[in-house]
Amino acid sequence: MSRTIQFSAAGGPEVLEFVETPVTAPAAHEVCLRVKAIGINRAEAMWRVDDYIEPVQFPARLGYEAAGIVDAVGSEVAGIAVGDKVNVIPSFSMNQYGTYGETVLVPDHAVVPHPPSLSFAEASSIWMMFVTAYAALVVDAKVGKGDFVLIPAASSSVGLAAIQIAKLEGATPIALTRTSEKKQQLLDAGATHVIATEETELVAEVQRITGGNGARIAFDPVGGKNFGKLIAALSFQGTAYIYGALASEPTELPVLDMIARMISVKAHNIWGTSGDPQRRQAAVDYVLKGLASGELKPVIDRSFKFDEIREVHRYLESNGQFGKVVVTL
Amino acid sequence: MSRTIQFSAAGGPEVLEFVETPVTAPAAHEVCLRVKAIGINRAEAMWRVDDYIEPVQFPARLGYEAAGIVDAVGSEVAGIAVGDKVNVIPSFSMNQYGTYGETVLVPDHAVVPHPPSLSFAEASSIWMMFVTAYAALVVDAKVGKGDFVLIPAASSSVGLAAIQIAKLEGATPIALTRTSEKKQQLLDAGATHVIATEETELVAEVQRITGGNGARIAFDPVGGKNFGKLIAALSFQGTAYIYGALASEPTELPVLDMIARMISVKAHNIWGTSGDPQRRQAAVDYVLKGLASGELKPVIDRSFKFDEIREVHRYLESNGQFGKVVVTL
Repeated sequence: MSRTIQFSAAGGPEVLEFVETPVTAPAAHEVCLRVKAIGINRAEAMWRVDDYIEPVQFPARLGYEAAGIVDAVGSEVAGIAVGDKVNVIPSFSMNQYGTYGETVLVPDHAVVPHPPSLSFAEASSIWMMFVTAYAALVVDAKVGKGDFVLIPAASSSVGLAAIQIAKLEGATPIALTRTSEKKQQLLDAGATHVIATEETELVAEVQRITGGNGARIAFDPVGGKNFGKLIAALSFQGTAYIYGALASEPTELPVLDMIARMISVKAHNIWGTSGDPQRRQAAVDYVLKGLASGELKPVIDRSFKFDEIREVHRYLESNGQFGKVVVTL
Repeated sequence: MSRTIQFSAAGGPEVLEFVETPVTAPAAHEVCLRVKAIGINRAEAMWRVDDYIEPVQFPARLGYEAAGIVDAVGSEVAGIAVGDKVNVIPSFSMNQYGTYGETVLVPDHAVVPHPPSLSFAEASSIWMMFVTAYAALVVDAKVGKGDFVLIPAASSSVGLAAIQIAKLEGATPIALTRTSEKKQQLLDAGATHVIATEETELVAEVQRITGGNGARIAFDPVGGKNFGKLIAALSFQGTAYIYGALASEPTELPVLDMIARMISVKAHNIWGTSGDPQRRQAAVDYVLKGLASGELKPVIDRSFKFDEIREVHRYLESNGQFGKVVVTL
């Protein structure tokens, strides 16, 4: 049996329940994983309230990321053996699989190598953040020397990954954060500039930093009422990636301003990369190389115990983190 | 002296005034044009009310397109001679130049050949419509066989150009129009499908036409309250070009729906193409070739006299056209 977290109705953290589920044998292309750590994502809190990119089928599992040890493999699984240390990269629907459990089944395409230099907790934290940022900034935007990259919610795990990756590619990361509270932390994390958006006029400050040109790229998980300012801070033919909808209010397009400067808005997710064998392999190679060289580093905000899962989700929704929340087993 | 149209304050069509202005010698890179016909654009009505992509400097000229005969050329102008029949392609700010006049100066980079098969009225109508649609659909989206293209405001000149160009490229144009009134005209103009958006449920009908996949491309000058439906009718990784803001209400992004399907919104204008020598040349060649083969054809809704300019703008804002409004001199 495996202690697994489920929920039977959408709601607050209190809907999360521990259920003893039988451990079934993996199907042909599945891997059975003894979970040692789980990386926690805002997406899972949106999933819990059934306000995510697909409707929840109840009773529901949750969880996209994990690190652990292989317990069993299906008959068609190649290159993964019992006893291997592995990680789970988000590349499935939570209606099909979930990682919040002591022992879980995952599809073999979601299993990637465990970076040797990392603990289980660290390894459970890296794939969503680095692959999401890599796919937008490196593969699509091809950021490099001379590019400025605006990073709202910069203290989030994906925001911090974007800072590291922009820097690694030779671009200039501009971290956006609401107040000055996390300014020094963001500078220490690699941001070249930090703008406290509730204290400084965003557009004027970006114009100042960029010598009047604006930033070529924004990488935004928020949307909402500040989206127009983000667009206004972009350069001619700039692009805003939007990969989350943390704002509760509508996201309006400043259409004429966008037309005048030929701005693009590209909605982004990890699945376009993690769901394709070649793109996933390139992403995994990029992240492993960056970790090995020390240019990419996990940033763990806080580690919880598995029993504390409701507390984990409460903490997650407080928006006060700096980096990733993980759970260890 | 040249009778020229100007306005000294933003407002309705009644602000347009005829002013006798001296004809000055062209500067080094200017061409003096005796105007025979003017192509009229919605952009000029937005300009007249000072709600366009840049603030109006008063007293203001207006006009982007014209066909006529060269009267004089500046000292550095090459390849254009007095007496040549030429056209003006939109590639300047109306704060610098305007074509609403008997004799006007335009920059030499805006002067393109007059297609031999066309009248002045026809030639004054083609550049904004075909180059705007070509730049989005051919250069950027690379539409081709198997692609469905959604075309809101399909009876507008740019909409009709998009129908012709989608078809020329082997794609399937789906014309969107509010009621069935113009359905037959749109079919006759080349649309493979016509959807009357006030009579048919757009998303379901697009799903039916596309076998459940949605359309890869939308090409929209409207935005506003129907924009979310347009996005919903796109395929996975589809793109909506937005090149106008005809709707008066806000344009909200359906962020989560876009993230789930990795949709892009690209704000589009003609200047990115007409303002670059190489891209402009490629666009001009494409349009001239299409006109010569008969695959591209002007569509003139109505021709007015120069004296009727206020009536022209009133008519323009009635949104009832099918094709281009032109003025002859």
